[in-house]
Amino acid sequence: MNKTFIFKILIFLSVICGDINSVFGQTISIDRVEPLNWWIGMKDPRLQLLIHGENIAGAQVKIDYPGVHVDKVNQVENPNYLFVDLTISPDCRAGNFSIELSKEIISQKGKRKPVKTLATRTLTYELKPRATYTKGQGVTSADFIYLLLPDRFSNGDPTNDTFKDMADTQADRKDPFLRHGGDLQGIINHLDYFKELGVTALWLNPVLENNQPLTDEGGAKRSAYHGYGFTDHYQVDKRLGGNAAYKKLVEVAHANGLKIIQDAVYNHVGINHWLVKDLPSADWLHQWPTYTNTSYKDQPLVDPYASNIDKKVTSDGWFVPFLPDLNQTNPFVANYLIQHALWTVEYFGIDAWRIDTYMYNDLEFMNRCNAALLEEFPKLHIFGENWVNSIANQSYFQQNNLNVPFKSNLPGSCDFQLQFAINDALNQKPGWNEGIQRIYQVLGQDYLYKDASKLVTFLDNHDMDRYFSVIGENFAKYKMGLTFLLTTRGIPQLYYGTEILMKNFKNPSDAEVRRDFPGGFPGDSENKFIAKGRTAAENEAFTFVKTLANYRKNTSALHSGQLMQFLPVDGVYVYFRYDNHKTVMVCINSNESEIEITTERFQERMAGFASAKNILTDDTLTSIQKLSLPPQSAVVLELMK
Amino acid sequence: MNKTFIFKILIFLSVICGDINSVFGQTISIDRVEPLNWWIGMKDPRLQLLIHGENIAGAQVKIDYPGVHVDKVNQVENPNYLFVDLTISPDCRAGNFSIELSKEIISQKGKRKPVKTLATRTLTYELKPRATYTKGQGVTSADFIYLLLPDRFSNGDPTNDTFKDMADTQADRKDPFLRHGGDLQGIINHLDYFKELGVTALWLNPVLENNQPLTDEGGAKRSAYHGYGFTDHYQVDKRLGGNAAYKKLVEVAHANGLKIIQDAVYNHVGINHWLVKDLPSADWLHQWPTYTNTSYKDQPLVDPYASNIDKKVTSDGWFVPFLPDLNQTNPFVANYLIQHALWTVEYFGIDAWRIDTYMYNDLEFMNRCNAALLEEFPKLHIFGENWVNSIANQSYFQQNNLNVPFKSNLPGSCDFQLQFAINDALNQKPGWNEGIQRIYQVLGQDYLYKDASKLVTFLDNHDMDRYFSVIGENFAKYKMGLTFLLTTRGIPQLYYGTEILMKNFKNPSDAEVRRDFPGGFPGDSENKFIAKGRTAAENEAFTFVKTLANYRKNTSALHSGQLMQFLPVDGVYVYFRYDNHKTVMVCINSNESEIEITTERFQERMAGFASAKNILTDDTLTSIQKLSLPPQSAVVLELMK
Repeated sequence: MNKTFIFKILIFLSVICGDINSVFGQTISIDRVEPLNWWIGMKDPRLQLLIHGENIAGAQVKIDYPGVHVDKVNQVENPNYLFVDLTISPDCRAGNFSIELSKEIISQKGKRKPVKTLATRTLTYELKPRATYTKGQGVTSADFIYLLLPDRFSNGDPTNDTFKDMADTQADRKDPFLRHGGDLQGIINHLDYFKELGVTALWLNPVLENNQPLTDEGGAKRSAYHGYGFTDHYQVDKRLGGNAAYKKLVEVAHANGLKIIQDAVYNHVGINHWLVKDLPSADWLHQWPTYTNTSYKDQPLVDPYASNIDKKVTSDGWFVPFLPDLNQTNPFVANYLIQHALWTVEYFGIDAWRIDTYMYNDLEFMNRCNAALLEEFPKLHIFGENWVNSIANQSYFQQNNLNVPFKSNLPGSCDFQLQFAINDALNQKPGWNEGIQRIYQVLGQDYLYKDASKLVTFLDNHDMDRYFSVIGENFAKYKMGLTFLLTTRGIPQLYYGTEILMKNFKNPSDAEVRRDFPGGFPGDSENKFIAKGRTAAENEAFTFVKTLANYRKNTSALHSGQLMQFLPVDGVYVYFRYDNHKTVMVCINSNESEIEITTERFQERMAGFASAKNILTDDTLTSIQKLSLPPQSAVVLELMK
Repeated sequence: MNKTFIFKILIFLSVICGDINSVFGQTISIDRVEPLNWWIGMKDPRLQLLIHGENIAGAQVKIDYPGVHVDKVNQVENPNYLFVDLTISPDCRAGNFSIELSKEIISQKGKRKPVKTLATRTLTYELKPRATYTKGQGVTSADFIYLLLPDRFSNGDPTNDTFKDMADTQADRKDPFLRHGGDLQGIINHLDYFKELGVTALWLNPVLENNQPLTDEGGAKRSAYHGYGFTDHYQVDKRLGGNAAYKKLVEVAHANGLKIIQDAVYNHVGINHWLVKDLPSADWLHQWPTYTNTSYKDQPLVDPYASNIDKKVTSDGWFVPFLPDLNQTNPFVANYLIQHALWTVEYFGIDAWRIDTYMYNDLEFMNRCNAALLEEFPKLHIFGENWVNSIANQSYFQQNNLNVPFKSNLPGSCDFQLQFAINDALNQKPGWNEGIQRIYQVLGQDYLYKDASKLVTFLDNHDMDRYFSVIGENFAKYKMGLTFLLTTRGIPQLYYGTEILMKNFKNPSDAEVRRDFPGGFPGDSENKFIAKGRTAAENEAFTFVKTLANYRKNTSALHSGQLMQFLPVDGVYVYFRYDNHKTVMVCINSNESEIEITTERFQERMAGFASAKNILTDDTLTSIQKLSLPPQSAVVLELMK
């Protein structure tokens, strides 16, 4: 017999005889309970608390609060986690309750008798009353969305630009890839600017904490100023002002008639996310034998002939190496993400939900998540980034008129197909299938969508070359595209700076299209927020957008009216928006020369009208039987009896 | 009182008193009864006879034959027509019956008493027994279709080249736009050629009489050698050999295992059609205040925002000035066309039905017509020419998975979308959305179709530049495209002459891609129907098509097997066709250089296989873990255990 054997026998005897000293008084270490709070009166009575603390697996969980029932305490691979399933009954009252954790810990020093310690911890958890109104106002085609990057728009609080305890400490406006110090207070400071422009909703690139290290891409150090690598779901990045500033932004925006759209990311998190650094289980992420990037290809997801491996690479491959891909088929991951979404809308009161890299998510999970959000917030609009290759495929990923085995419940998408067509319309000569025909053809396939008015239409965004650069800085084209955007179907979205003719500078890249808004930062030599700070051309552009946006705002025909479009002939595209109040006729001449058209072809919509008001010039046309259209122009006419 | 008044009184009195001489013996003039005959035992017991004769309106119609009932005698605007509705009961027996027409005609010479004449006419009409088997074998993806123009393939009977009583008397092989004398006997003479090539079905451009005048298009006199301007629905053009030759072709073809596909034209007829020259009613055609051409645009038909005028121009505008557009909403027109279709299949025994200019027809009418054909001939395949602009729109006009207000029942279409993609695959460098990706992307949208295997796939046709010219007469590309055509899903169709490298010559035009098949005409200096008459390159091409076509014919996996396609990577596209018998792997290397690929990615389909036979070279590959793919090549491997 060797010593080890004797020792084992002793341990065995001790256990059998209960001969272990029991001691009270150790404290269970807990560093996180998420969601941070919850609400009574949610439609779904279930809540799954994530509790994180060193070695808490095995702890007992006790809650003694009327209407709160512990259904199950789940353990996972990593002993530092408990997932506690609660049911909150409909008659439960708001208030704080205690969660009592207790766990016997057996410790032993040297050859002494093992000591059994009862470690405990009492947590306080809050159930708030829900708001007296239903959060999530939604955005509709009556809105006009302004998309901006919080880090690049305006620095309203220079005290929060850098923090030494963050992985990225190098705010530096001279470097396009580093943080520039923009923040939520900067946005709050310019609500009047948005209102003047006719904007009704702000879409901010993601605001959650991105405590990511700098990455090295092709020699350039890059920060996560864009916000797409979350490291903490329950904290708005403190460099943007934290949760308090975001809550304030939503409140002040709402008070000013502006809505807030959250940029949601379910597909991945930052490599520095606290959950990644202490994974609940290996399958929290999509794990691959060797690093595998997504193919960025949508086709395997829709293709009836696709292989499983191609589907898996698209869905489960990582977006980039520093954004670990979440496994949403893990039910704890799914609950975590869904509850965070619900928490965000109820806590901050945001109005709509833009979902990043939509198709890369587990699509069944997304359906559950969308349904959960819409159950609690029926008016919330949800739209996805579906940057795909065809109209049919774009429709596949949202509510559509397709009889296919997978039915998406996503209400809307960013309308990339129309964006491609607008580019072609402005940059190609009119042809059989080219130029202005492209817009007509894309809209003509709206039968694929359940409701095309829920698509978010745009000229560019933070991932694309800027609109004004793409059209060769041609101001005539600029006006054509904007006029189309603000008069066609869908929810129009402008990318910040387009109204002041911001363009790509050199070496187009992500950073080049995300330059600071001039005047938004301390020490800026120019201030484009005010007319005096803008050049004549910039003021012309600003006024153009403002005129159209405000006209749209006050013209129900343009947001909820019907659309009728006519086959473009000779490079001229004519369409109408109309309701019981007004008929608006838009004529786009995509030719480089003036053209006169007779309007007889359009009698279905023009019958009964004798004259028109030109909305952009304020001129009145006393005859509308013939129209003279300037080269490369869009004329907006409000028809009159 | 004037004379006229007195005369009217006299007439009145004569009528009152019956004081008109009645005389028997005049004959009602009848020049047409259509359909030429009918059958007992049709699923639909109704038959509408068109009877044409001078001023026959008002005639009584009497039929005394067991099981045949006259339901209604319809008159139309033009008194030269009667449309007689019959019901043929299920127990009716085959045989001839008499149709007795009688009409009182009042005539008057000078001031004599009016004479009442009873004009009569007895017609004999035949009810045949139906064939003992159901006609219309259909074509499926097990078939290989060969498309040819009867006038341009082979002249088997030089006695029928010209007829002085036809509007176009100028057969002249030297003029590409005139008739060349090809005929049905010429096709019959070459059945062995088709069989050797591996063809299983012949699609002939239309064979019905085209007694059209020469038209003048841009200075060139053009004949209706193409066949798309019918002048008599019930006569095959006598320059092709007439009804007898067509019946013989079908019989001999069937005896040789070849099917016949009829090219049907419902949308329009020739300006010289006898019905056009004596219109039953003005609304037999789509009439416009001034000549209106179709826009050739599909979008207004699908577009939820379309105007009625744009829809009407597409559907009701004329295809060209000499092809009057039929109004299929006129119930007599609809019956006429549907009955002609039924008659054709039962009378000639053709196997499938290709519908010209499908989308330009009245689509509700087409649904009725397709349903009527499939009711009588359930295996008949029907596919339409839907030369449109997008995959979704192509799917819209056939049986699809779209929830849209109009549901087409057309089983298949010519797959123009895939043809466009094949062109791009062969002529573009591999890119993100370009080159070989295009094929992958188009097939990936097959979820839009109810059954994509019913699409007819092709490289070119009689309306397009020839395949070999489009790919720059590059033989490597030639083989890639053909290999894809003969191994992917759908029903492959070859355009005559592609197997012998026929190309456009100069000034591409319709006629340039419809050149005579060399060796098909008396006096031809070359005979490409036989190996000796072909150049080495032509024989290589012929053998290539023959090898693949015959392999396909004997390989169920290639026609009824599943398809699995993998995302093209580095310009290499790999897909599999497989069933319980075989797994066929096709690797297309679209690069201009050789490439070696590892096949690990394809394990879903390769697991269990260790070696392979290269179908095109007959080589055996003892290892298939790595494959070396020659530049611009398609390798077809039959996998082996």
